[in-house]
Amino acid sequence: MSLEAIRYRRGSLQILNQLLLPQQSLYEEIGSVQQGWEAIRAMKVRGAPAIAIVGCLSLAVELYHKGNWEQSMSKLENFVLDSLNYLVSARPTAVNMARAAQELGHFVHQEAKRDGATAERLQESVISWAEAMLDKDLKDNRSIGEHGARHLLQQAGQDKVIVLTHCNTGSLATAGYGTALGVIRSLHAMGRLEHVYCTETRPYNQGARLTAYELVYEQIPATLIADSMASFTMKEKQVSAVFVGADRVVANGDTANKVGTYQLAIAAKHHGIPFYVAAPSSSCDLSLEHGGQIVIEERPSQELTDINGVRVAAPGIGVWNPAFDVTPHDLLTGGIVTEFGVFAPAELQVALTQAMSKK
Amino acid sequence: MSLEAIRYRRGSLQILNQLLLPQQSLYEEIGSVQQGWEAIRAMKVRGAPAIAIVGCLSLAVELYHKGNWEQSMSKLENFVLDSLNYLVSARPTAVNMARAAQELGHFVHQEAKRDGATAERLQESVISWAEAMLDKDLKDNRSIGEHGARHLLQQAGQDKVIVLTHCNTGSLATAGYGTALGVIRSLHAMGRLEHVYCTETRPYNQGARLTAYELVYEQIPATLIADSMASFTMKEKQVSAVFVGADRVVANGDTANKVGTYQLAIAAKHHGIPFYVAAPSSSCDLSLEHGGQIVIEERPSQELTDINGVRVAAPGIGVWNPAFDVTPHDLLTGGIVTEFGVFAPAELQVALTQAMSKK
Repeated sequence: MSLEAIRYRRGSLQILNQLLLPQQSLYEEIGSVQQGWEAIRAMKVRGAPAIAIVGCLSLAVELYHKGNWEQSMSKLENFVLDSLNYLVSARPTAVNMARAAQELGHFVHQEAKRDGATAERLQESVISWAEAMLDKDLKDNRSIGEHGARHLLQQAGQDKVIVLTHCNTGSLATAGYGTALGVIRSLHAMGRLEHVYCTETRPYNQGARLTAYELVYEQIPATLIADSMASFTMKEKQVSAVFVGADRVVANGDTANKVGTYQLAIAAKHHGIPFYVAAPSSSCDLSLEHGGQIVIEERPSQELTDINGVRVAAPGIGVWNPAFDVTPHDLLTGGIVTEFGVFAPAELQVALTQAMSKK
Repeated sequence: MSLEAIRYRRGSLQILNQLLLPQQSLYEEIGSVQQGWEAIRAMKVRGAPAIAIVGCLSLAVELYHKGNWEQSMSKLENFVLDSLNYLVSARPTAVNMARAAQELGHFVHQEAKRDGATAERLQESVISWAEAMLDKDLKDNRSIGEHGARHLLQQAGQDKVIVLTHCNTGSLATAGYGTALGVIRSLHAMGRLEHVYCTETRPYNQGARLTAYELVYEQIPATLIADSMASFTMKEKQVSAVFVGADRVVANGDTANKVGTYQLAIAAKHHGIPFYVAAPSSSCDLSLEHGGQIVIEERPSQELTDINGVRVAAPGIGVWNPAFDVTPHDLLTGGIVTEFGVFAPAELQVALTQAMSKK
């Protein structure tokens, strides 16, 4: 059974507190919007898809237990809208929660106007909407895993493959299963994965803390390396492919992702190793033409100079700490893996537009 | 005045305790071979050239104060040989101390056989030998700095240059001044340095701790980055060149250096940025034909999984922690900077053989 960062059944939501990982695996009950907001704010849950899902499910759980709306649809509708606004404020930069709030807000408004609508039915449809969001993310991740694994196996023509990955793109960042780490899970489930190398992913160590935790949990044969060792690993360890996630893929295929992704892509090209980006279509932003239009967030210097609250770097040194970098599309030599299939950067825009129009 | 990691005048030796850096700058007196051994063993001093120099100077200081040999040259000779053997045992893998012990052992044996030799004269010549070693390393580093700076400025054709460097190759690893960091010091002294980017250099953080310390001390404009940010820095920050040191350069120019060097060289090539190795001829080993013959030391996994004694990585994860990697000579697009000048990898063997024969 794959690691569950979010445990949900109707009326009950638990999340794995990521602040305590990897030392401690503790699930915490989220019984209300207030508790959902606090968990997101405190970063007990992180990763853009996971934040939106936990936010919406916290609303679903509270709605389920609330029950008594005195037949007032407008009270219910207001409660949903207020809750969504509040949830968005927990991490204002997490765009997925804002998008979900907009969509769910629109949905509840439409449902309330339906013929035969009642408060009870409205409540039921909001809960179902949040549940469908969880299901869709999981299903999309499984499709990404399947598409990515099959594409690599076909390209590599090997019985077993060796994959290198960066940052955390697994169950802990999504509804479950993961994107790049989902591909690794699929390869492992097929019995076609020989080994994974995961980078520690400085400065926030998501690889060492979270990806390593998931790999150990799933008993996937894996080795942790420093970010600076990736090229030497490619040269010495017969790496078959690199898989990374994406924060944003724009129309021409340029990809913003955790800092260090660009360097890995250059190294992969140098070694003739296919480089894949794995991301759901919801992470593709066709409104931007190229990566130069993506604004890169810079993070506090303490993330780099201090570790576990202890100063490591020399006092007085200046720091540059971009959270992401942009990998130009021509370095994505493997392709972009979405829930609709694997596309070359040049195919992405048309393929996604067609796939979305069929939905 | 450039940072002094080793303070010496006849009869007195002090070293900057690197275990306390960057938090505390404390010089400790080394008055005997025993104290020299302990400082090396405890890694208060590190870097292959620095270890050998501190070892030999600790002997020189003890000899200076001892004085009374009762006119017995053989007692003196035995004391020198025993002390050298003992010093080598402090860090058996540090090849420079072993080489210095062999050379000084040979020297004392020859001096003792000279016409007119006395215990007093023998004592004097051993002290002078150790002092010459310090002087030569400093002088060689200054030559490296000068050659490297002039070469880059000529190539770059810019008024001011921006340099990226890795690990620590400065005063703290040598007798003073440094190799790659010596080039940076020279550029700064010439008023031709705009900025330095130094990588933190995981897993042992020599860049964040030591190089950053030296750069702050010298008031050289500098910025610390994570190792994974080097490529993005090259792309975004107009880097003119990369300078790194070397643990060993072999006959064809292949270079073993701190892990991550290979990745930087690939990134530099991708961006069309010249990549330089700066190393004294004593770090060039012409007895090996190519880099494949260099054995790479693997270090304990705790260096990567724990920081300041606190576990960061998920328990149970496997680790690969090579201390060095090998950069193939064709990636040294700037050249190899030695005290004799800057050479293309293909010129190195002939150039060094000629230079050594003239000495």
